[in-house]
Amino acid sequence: MIKKMTKEELVAKAMQPGIDAMRLHPFYKGKVGVMPKCCIRDFDDFAIWYTPGVAKPCLDIRDNPEKVFEHTNKGNMIAVVSDGTRVLGLGDIGPEAAMPVMEGKAILFKYLGGVDAVPICLDTKDPDVFIETVKLLQPSYGGFNLEDISQPKCFRILEELRAQCRIPVWHDDQQGTAAVTVAGVFNALKIVGKDLASVSVSMIGAGAANTACLRVLISAGLPPENVVMCDVDGILHKNRTEFEEGDPRLDFCRKTNAENRRGGIPEAMKGTDLCIAYSKPGPDAFKPEWISAMNKDAILFTCANPIPEIWPWVAKEAGARIVATGRSDFPNQVNNSLGFPGIFRGTLDVMATTITDEMCVEAARALAKVAEDKGMHESHLVPTMDEWEVYPREAAAVGRKAIEQGVARLDLSYDELLKMAEEKIKNARESFHALQDKGLIRLPD
Amino acid sequence: MIKKMTKEELVAKAMQPGIDAMRLHPFYKGKVGVMPKCCIRDFDDFAIWYTPGVAKPCLDIRDNPEKVFEHTNKGNMIAVVSDGTRVLGLGDIGPEAAMPVMEGKAILFKYLGGVDAVPICLDTKDPDVFIETVKLLQPSYGGFNLEDISQPKCFRILEELRAQCRIPVWHDDQQGTAAVTVAGVFNALKIVGKDLASVSVSMIGAGAANTACLRVLISAGLPPENVVMCDVDGILHKNRTEFEEGDPRLDFCRKTNAENRRGGIPEAMKGTDLCIAYSKPGPDAFKPEWISAMNKDAILFTCANPIPEIWPWVAKEAGARIVATGRSDFPNQVNNSLGFPGIFRGTLDVMATTITDEMCVEAARALAKVAEDKGMHESHLVPTMDEWEVYPREAAAVGRKAIEQGVARLDLSYDELLKMAEEKIKNARESFHALQDKGLIRLPD
Repeated sequence: MIKKMTKEELVAKAMQPGIDAMRLHPFYKGKVGVMPKCCIRDFDDFAIWYTPGVAKPCLDIRDNPEKVFEHTNKGNMIAVVSDGTRVLGLGDIGPEAAMPVMEGKAILFKYLGGVDAVPICLDTKDPDVFIETVKLLQPSYGGFNLEDISQPKCFRILEELRAQCRIPVWHDDQQGTAAVTVAGVFNALKIVGKDLASVSVSMIGAGAANTACLRVLISAGLPPENVVMCDVDGILHKNRTEFEEGDPRLDFCRKTNAENRRGGIPEAMKGTDLCIAYSKPGPDAFKPEWISAMNKDAILFTCANPIPEIWPWVAKEAGARIVATGRSDFPNQVNNSLGFPGIFRGTLDVMATTITDEMCVEAARALAKVAEDKGMHESHLVPTMDEWEVYPREAAAVGRKAIEQGVARLDLSYDELLKMAEEKIKNARESFHALQDKGLIRLPD
Repeated sequence: MIKKMTKEELVAKAMQPGIDAMRLHPFYKGKVGVMPKCCIRDFDDFAIWYTPGVAKPCLDIRDNPEKVFEHTNKGNMIAVVSDGTRVLGLGDIGPEAAMPVMEGKAILFKYLGGVDAVPICLDTKDPDVFIETVKLLQPSYGGFNLEDISQPKCFRILEELRAQCRIPVWHDDQQGTAAVTVAGVFNALKIVGKDLASVSVSMIGAGAANTACLRVLISAGLPPENVVMCDVDGILHKNRTEFEEGDPRLDFCRKTNAENRRGGIPEAMKGTDLCIAYSKPGPDAFKPEWISAMNKDAILFTCANPIPEIWPWVAKEAGARIVATGRSDFPNQVNNSLGFPGIFRGTLDVMATTITDEMCVEAARALAKVAEDKGMHESHLVPTMDEWEVYPREAAAVGRKAIEQGVARLDLSYDELLKMAEEKIKNARESFHALQDKGLIRLPD
C-alpha cells in the first residue's frame, strides 16, 4: 500500500540525502579511484607491465588491432561523458558541477554491473565539438554512456555518434530510461490482461525520456498509430511542422495519432489504456478527472522528478489501477539504475559494436521477468536495485540478442553469459567490500 | 661491481619480461580498473552518492567552482594522455597499441604515488587537435601527464598546454626524465667533488629527454655557456639556423657552446667533466677513446634504451669514474618511475596550478638526498623504486617549492605534506594488496 504523504513531508524526506551528501562528499573528496587489476607480486613485475616487457603486447596490438581487447581493459572500460548542460533537474550547471553525478554513475556501473566507468565532463557546449571529441576518445574505451546533455542537441549527438563510432554509444536519459519504463509497461499490461499490439497509449512529454520510450515500445510491437504524444505545445499531429529534421518529434508527428486528435494533456489521455508521463513536476500537474477519463484498468506512469505529476494515491482514487513513479519511496519505481549496469555488462561481454533498440527491449523483458518470477503484482511491476540477480540476467539477455542480431564479436550461450556476468559483478562487489571491511575505505565519522 | 655481459646475454635477459607480458596481459585483460572510494553501507547510500542527494554538491560547485576539489576526485585524478606516435622505442604504433604502456603508467602512478591516473589515447596525430582536446578534458582532472608523443610536436604541445591549461601539464619524456637524471648528476658531482656552476658538460642527443635535462640543469645553476650539445647533425652552435621558433634546440644554439666548438660527438665530449647521452642504442655508439678524452673523474650518463651507447664496464675501463644507464640490471639506473609518482603526489597535495622547472629541481634534490642518506657512492647515485620513502619525501619537497613559488592553492608544512603523502601511498598499496591477498586479483596460473 502507498502511504499518503503531504508535499511538505515528501520534500522534507527528500532533503536528507542532500544533507548527507554535503557532509560526505568532502569527507571522501571524490567517489571513484583507479585500482590496478593485475598482480604485483614484487617490483620485478613492473618490468612485465611497463617497459621493457610491455613492448610486446603493444606490437601485438599494432599488428592485430582486435588484440586491444586481449591486452588492455578496453573490453570492460567505458566513459561516462557529459557536457553538464542538463544535469538532473538542475539545468546547465557546467562540466565541473556535473562531476559528482558522473562519479556517482561510475560507482553504480561498477557496483551493480562490474563495469569500469570513467567520468569525463567536457568543457564545451558546442554539439559538433562534443561529437568530435568523443570520437577521438574511442581508442581507450569499449563504450560511451552519454549523460545529462540538453535537448534538442542530445538527439543529434546520440544519432551521429552511434553512426560514426566503432564502439557502442548510449544516452542513458534516452535508452536507459526507456528500457526500464518499458519493463514496467510489459508487466502492467500482463496484470490488466491487455496486449501491446492493441492498447491505446498517451505519452505526456516529448523529451529525451519519452521519445526514447516510444521508439523502444514501437520496436517491441506497439503500433505507432495507437499513440497520442503531447509536448508543451500540445498533441503532436501531422500539421505540426516546427521541428527540425533529426528531432524525433518530427517523426512522431508523422507516425502517431492516427485519430488526428488535437488539444492538450486531457485530450491526449482521454480513452487511453496506458499513459506514460515524463513532463513537469507535480503534484498538481495532472487533474484527477484526466485519469478518470482513461479506459478501465488504466495504467499510469507518472515519472516527473522529484514530485510526480500527480500523487499516486490521488491517481488511484481517480481510477488508475496501476501507478508507477520515479521515486524510491513509492511502489513501482522506474529506476534507471536497473538498466544501464546490466545492459553494458551484456554489451561488453559479447564485444558488441552497438546497442540496438532490440537489445533494449530484451533488457526490458529480462527485467520484467525477474519481477514476474518473484511474484509480480500491481505494486511490484519491476525489481529493485538490491535484487542482484537482475543484472546478470539482463546482461545475458542483452548479449544473446546482440549475437542474434549480428552485432557481437563473440558467440556465447545464455548460460555462459550469465555465469560470466555473475562472476564479474561478484568480483566488483567483493573487492569493494574487502576494502571497506578492512577500513581502507573508511566509514564516515 | 658490474657483471660483464655480452650483447647476446643482455638481449636474452631483456626478452623474458616480454614473454611474460604476452602471457599475462591476456590473463588479466587490462591492468587498471575503477573502484569506488566512498562508503556503500547499503543501497540507501546511493541516494547520497547519486540522485537525489548528489544535487546539493553539484549546486555547491556551480556556485563555488573551487569546491570541485572538495566534492569530486579532481584533486587526486590525472589523465595519462598520448597519441601513440612515439611509444617507447617502437615509433608511431597508434593509439590502441599505446594503451598497454599508458595502463602500465597508471598502475605505477597508483602504486608508487597514490595518484589515480586514467589512461587516454587520442585518435589523432594532429598537434592542434591534440591540444584542443586535452583542454576540453580539464574539468575532470587535476593534471595531465603527456606521454610518448613524437618530436618535434611534443615541445609545442607541452608549451601551449602549460600556457593555456588551468591545471598542471607534464610531459614525462621531458620533465620526468630530467628530474631523475639531474638527481643522479647532483650526487655524481658530490662524489667527484665538482661544482655544477663550474663543470663543463657535453650532452649527446637533443631530443625530448636531453633538452629537458639541460633546461632543468640550467634552472639548477649550470651556466649554459659551459655546455656543448650535439644532435644527429653535430654540435649545436650559433650558426645553425634550421630549427623552428619554439624548438628548444634553437634556444640552445644561442645560449650554449661559448667556445663555439664544431664537429660531432667526440669533439663535443672532449675535455668535459660530465657527459649526458640520450642518443642511439649501443653498445658501439660511443668509442672508448671518446671517454678517455674527457676530464679526470669523468661522469657518464649513457642512457640509450634498450642498450646503452657503450657498455658501462667498457666506459669504466676507458676512464669514466661514474657511469649511469637506463637499465635496471646495471647500477645507477636513471628510472623515470622515481620521478612522476612523487612529483604528482606533491603537486596534487598542494593543489598546484603548474609544475615549474624549480619544482623538478627540488624533486631531483630530494631523490639525491634519499640516496645520500642511505650511503651514496659511485654505484649508488639514485634510489631504486622499491625504496618507498622516496615518494613521500619527493612529494613534500615539490609541494613546499610550489608553495614558495606561489603556484599552490594550499599552504602546508613539509611535515604535514610528508604525512599526507605517506598516508595516501600507504592506502594505495595496502588496498591493492588486500585485493591480491584475498584472491580478488588472482595470481597467474
